[in-house]
Amino acid sequence: MLRVDLNCDMGESFGVYQTNADSELMKSITSANIACGFHAGDAATIRRTVKLAIAHDVAIGAHPGLPDLAGFGRRAMDISPDEAYELTVYQLGAVYAFAKSEGGVIAHVKPHGALYNMAAKSRPLADAIAEAVYKVEPNLLLFGLAGSELIRAGEAIGLRTVSEVFADRTYEADGSLTPRGAEGAVITDAARAAEQAIRMVRDGEVITRKRSSFILRADTVCVHGDTPGAVEHVKQLRAALEAVGIAVKKAGG
Amino acid sequence: MLRVDLNCDMGESFGVYQTNADSELMKSITSANIACGFHAGDAATIRRTVKLAIAHDVAIGAHPGLPDLAGFGRRAMDISPDEAYELTVYQLGAVYAFAKSEGGVIAHVKPHGALYNMAAKSRPLADAIAEAVYKVEPNLLLFGLAGSELIRAGEAIGLRTVSEVFADRTYEADGSLTPRGAEGAVITDAARAAEQAIRMVRDGEVITRKRSSFILRADTVCVHGDTPGAVEHVKQLRAALEAVGIAVKKAGG
Amino acid sequence: MLRVDLNCDMGESFGVYQTNADSELMKSITSANIACGFHAGDAATIRRTVKLAIAHDVAIGAHPGLPDLAGFGRRAMDISPDEAYELTVYQLGAVYAFAKSEGGVIAHVKPHGALYNMAAKSRPLADAIAEAVYKVEPNLLLFGLAGSELIRAGEAIGLRTVSEVFADRTYEADGSLTPRGAEGAVITDAARAAEQAIRMVRDGEVITRKRSSFILRADTVCVHGDTPGAVEHVKQLRAALEAVGIAVKKAGG
Amino acid sequence: MLRVDLNCDMGESFGVYQTNADSELMKSITSANIACGFHAGDAATIRRTVKLAIAHDVAIGAHPGLPDLAGFGRRAMDISPDEAYELTVYQLGAVYAFAKSEGGVIAHVKPHGALYNMAAKSRPLADAIAEAVYKVEPNLLLFGLAGSELIRAGEAIGLRTVSEVFADRTYEADGSLTPRGAEGAVITDAARAAEQAIRMVRDGEVITRKRSSFILRADTVCVHGDTPGAVEHVKQLRAALEAVGIAVKKAGG
Repeated sequence: MLRVDLNCDMGESFGVYQTNADSELMKSITSANIACGFHAGDAATIRRTVKLAIAHDVAIGAHPGLPDLAGFGRRAMDISPDEAYELTVYQLGAVYAFAKSEGGVIAHVKPHGALYNMAAKSRPLADAIAEAVYKVEPNLLLFGLAGSELIRAGEAIGLRTVSEVFADRTYEADGSLTPRGAEGAVITDAARAAEQAIRMVRDGEVITRKRSSFILRADTVCVHGDTPGAVEHVKQLRAALEAVGIAVKKAGG
Repeated sequence: MLRVDLNCDMGESFGVYQTNADSELMKSITSANIACGFHAGDAATIRRTVKLAIAHDVAIGAHPGLPDLAGFGRRAMDISPDEAYELTVYQLGAVYAFAKSEGGVIAHVKPHGALYNMAAKSRPLADAIAEAVYKVEPNLLLFGLAGSELIRAGEAIGLRTVSEVFADRTYEADGSLTPRGAEGAVITDAARAAEQAIRMVRDGEVITRKRSSFILRADTVCVHGDTPGAVEHVKQLRAALEAVGIAVKKAGG
Repeated sequence: MLRVDLNCDMGESFGVYQTNADSELMKSITSANIACGFHAGDAATIRRTVKLAIAHDVAIGAHPGLPDLAGFGRRAMDISPDEAYELTVYQLGAVYAFAKSEGGVIAHVKPHGALYNMAAKSRPLADAIAEAVYKVEPNLLLFGLAGSELIRAGEAIGLRTVSEVFADRTYEADGSLTPRGAEGAVITDAARAAEQAIRMVRDGEVITRKRSSFILRADTVCVHGDTPGAVEHVKQLRAALEAVGIAVKKAGG
Repeated sequence: MLRVDLNCDMGESFGVYQTNADSELMKSITSANIACGFHAGDAATIRRTVKLAIAHDVAIGAHPGLPDLAGFGRRAMDISPDEAYELTVYQLGAVYAFAKSEGGVIAHVKPHGALYNMAAKSRPLADAIAEAVYKVEPNLLLFGLAGSELIRAGEAIGLRTVSEVFADRTYEADGSLTPRGAEGAVITDAARAAEQAIRMVRDGEVITRKRSSFILRADTVCVHGDTPGAVEHVKQLRAALEAVGIAVKKAGG
C-alpha cells in the first residue's frame, strides 16, 4: 500500500515573538521539525512544541540550522564540515532532552534553510551532518532533499533516510527546486500542488518546470505553516492524498 | 575509607577566545563541569572538552548557566522557575549529545555562577533545576552548594546529590560563602586551603571567618582553573588530600 | 496653554519576527522610542522605523534595553553602573547613526523595561544612564518615570528631562505604578484612562488605587502598541486630550 | 615627502575574554580599527579602546563585521546589500557615540574579515557600505584593499578613500592577497616584510608571489596584533619605514 509522511517546520517562536498555527497544523501532519534555537526557537518553545507533538502523535524531529537568528538561518554561511558536525550534535541534543523530559522520543533530523540547501549539494557538509546524527543515535531518520548529497551521505554511513519532496514548488531538469525568485517557482494553486504530490508519491516522478520528467523518491512531503491559508492547504493536501488511497503515516514505520 | 571528588569548571572557550589550561587540569581532577554555550563555551569546545575528559577518565558534567555570554553568567537575572527548568534541559541535552557522540556518558549537572547562587537560596528555582535533571535522566548526580536549597530540592525529587565545598573560600556563620568583595573572602595560601579541605572532608565541618564552626557535608571540592598557578594549586591540593589518606575519586561511585 | 507629548515603544521587530502596527500608530503619537537591538529591534528595523518617524514628523528616540532578546529586556539583571553607562552609549549611537543617515535627528532617550524600572529606583544606575546621554549629546531629552531617580539624575547632570505618566496603569500611594500582577493594575476602560491622563496633565495629580492623591508632573503619556485595539485606543486618547484643550505636541519644544 | 599610515585591528575583547596587547600596540600605530560588537568587541571594550586611542593620539575607526561572534566575522555570509548597509550604519554609530562621549572623534571605517573580503570583490556590497558611511558622515575616511571594489565605491560616492596594503602577506598577479592556506602566503621574516612595505609606499608596486610586479597605491599598512611577537614586529616596521624617510602619520591629514 502506498504511504507518505507529511512534515512541517514547527516551534519557530522566540521569546515574545510568537508565530504560526502550530497546534492547528499538528492535526494534519505526521512529522514536526522543531527549531533548536540557532535560527529560531528557544528552550520554552521546544518544550511546548514537543508536548504538542506528543499530544497529537506526531513524530518529533530536530531541525538544526545555522547560528543566525537575525537571518532565520536562510543566509548561506561558509562553515566547515567540523562546524556542521558540531552544530548538528548540539542542536540535536537540545531536542533530544526535551523529548525525553516530556516522555517522548526523537525520531528524525532535518537540517533547516541554508544548511539544508548546502547539505544537498556539498558532500563534505552532508557527511558531517550524517555522522553527527549517526554518532548521537544511529536509529534516527535523516530527512533530506530527494536525490541530494545528504540522502547519499546518510545511506553511506548507515542511517535510514527519508527523501523529501515539495508539493508547492516547481522542479528544474536536474531535480533541484526552482529558485524562489524565478517565475513559477511556487505553486499557489492547491489542486495543482496536490496533483504534483500524488504523482511524486505514486509514480516516483515529477514534471519539471520545462515539462521534462524527473524520477525521484518521495517518502515525505514538506508542507509550510507560515503562508496565508496554511492550515487549510495542509488539510486539503492530506485529504487529496488519502482520496487516491495513499496512507498518510509517519516516516520509517 | 574517606573519599572526595575534585571538580573544576571546564570548556569555557568561545570561538577565537581560548581560555584555560584544561588539558593540564584534567590530570588532577575527577569531575569536569562543561560550559554549555549560554554563559561560555560553544559546540566545538564542548566536543573537545568531552574528548579530553574521556581521555583522562574524568566524569563529564553539564554546567548550565544564564543566557549571558557578555557577563559570563555571573549577573543575577530575574528568571522564572519555568525558565530555569527550560534552560537546564536545553543545556544538559547539548552536553549529553556530545558525551554520547564521543562514546562517553554524562554523569552530573552543576549550575554555573549566578544560577548556582540563585539555586542555593531559592527553593522554587532549585526545584525547577532538580526536576529538569530528573526528567532528562534520573540517574544523573546533582552538584550543589553543601547545605543549599539545591541539595534539598535534588533529594526531594529523588536525585543523588553531591554536596560541594570550597577549599579556597571562607565561610560565614550560616554556611554561606563570604562574598567575594569582602575582606578575607579568598584563601590564597595553598597550605591553608588544603587544610580547610581536609577538615571539611574528614571532620564534616568548616571553621568560619568569624572562628565559629559549621557542620557541612563535603562530597566534592571545587577547584578553579582560571587563576594564576591554578594547575599547580590543584596538584598540591590533591596531594595534600591523598597524603592524609583521603582517596580522590569521582563522585557517586 | 496646556500641552503633552504622546510616546510609544516602536521598532520591536527582529529578523523574520514582525510586530505591531507601527505605521498606524505613528499617526497619533508625537514621540517614538525605538528599540536598539539589545532587547528587541535590529538594524533593518531601526532604519525602517526612523524613516516612518520622519515621514510622520514624530520625534525619534533611542530606547536602550538590557542585553536580553529572549526576555525582551523585561527580566531584571544585576548590572553595574558602568555597564548601564556603556550599554546606553552603544545603543544610543546606533539610533543616532540611522537618524543621521536618513536625514533626521535623534531627540530623546528612554530606557526600556527592566532597565527603566531599575533606573527609576537606583540612583547609581540612573546617574550612569544620564551621564551616558549627556556625554553623547547634552541636548537630548531624557524620558523617565515622573518622580523617579532617573528624572532626578537627568536634572542633576544638566539634561532636560521629560516626566512620563501612564494613562492605563494605576498608581500606588508612593507614586509608583501598581505592579502588573496586582488586581486593578491595568485600566482597560478607555474613557477612564483618558480621564486619568487629563487629570495628570491638567491638574498635576493622580488618584491612586487606594483613592489617595499623588502630585506628579506629566510631560508625556506612554501609550502601548502591543495590545488589542491599540491603534484605536491611542486615537481616542489623543482626541480626548485635545477635546479639553490640551495640545498634543512633541516634548521639549 | 613620503608618508604612510599604520593601522591595526583593536578592541577585540568580549566580556571575560580579554585579548591582545592593545595598549602596547597603540604606541606604534596611527590608526585603530575598533571592533563594534558583531564579530568581536563589546560596549565596555569599545569605550576602553577609544580612550586608549585618544591617549595615544591614534585615529579612531569603526571596524564593522558580520554578525558572527562565534566565527569572529571570518565566515562569509550571503548577506544582501541592504543588510550590509544596515550593519555598517549600526556599528559605525556605536563607535561614533563612544568617540563623542570620550571627547574624541571618529576618523575612519574599515570593514572586518569576511565583510572586508566580500566588499573587495562585490561592487553592490561595496556600494552599500560606502553609502552607509557617506550618509552617516561624509567626512569619514573609507579604508579598503588597494585596488578593490570598495575603494572604487568610496570614490564614486565622494568619500576620501585610504588604500590598504599588507607588509606580511604575499600578493597574486591580479593584486589579490595569496589565500592564507597557500604556501608562502604569510611573510614571517620581519626584514622582508619591511622591505615589501617600503617598496609599496615608495614605489607604488609590489612584487607578487610569482615574481611579477603589480602597481598599487599604499596609503596605509595593516599590521596584526594577534601574532606572537606582534608588538616588536610593528615597532620594527615603523622604524624601518622611518629609516628610509617615510613619515608614519595618520591617514587623510
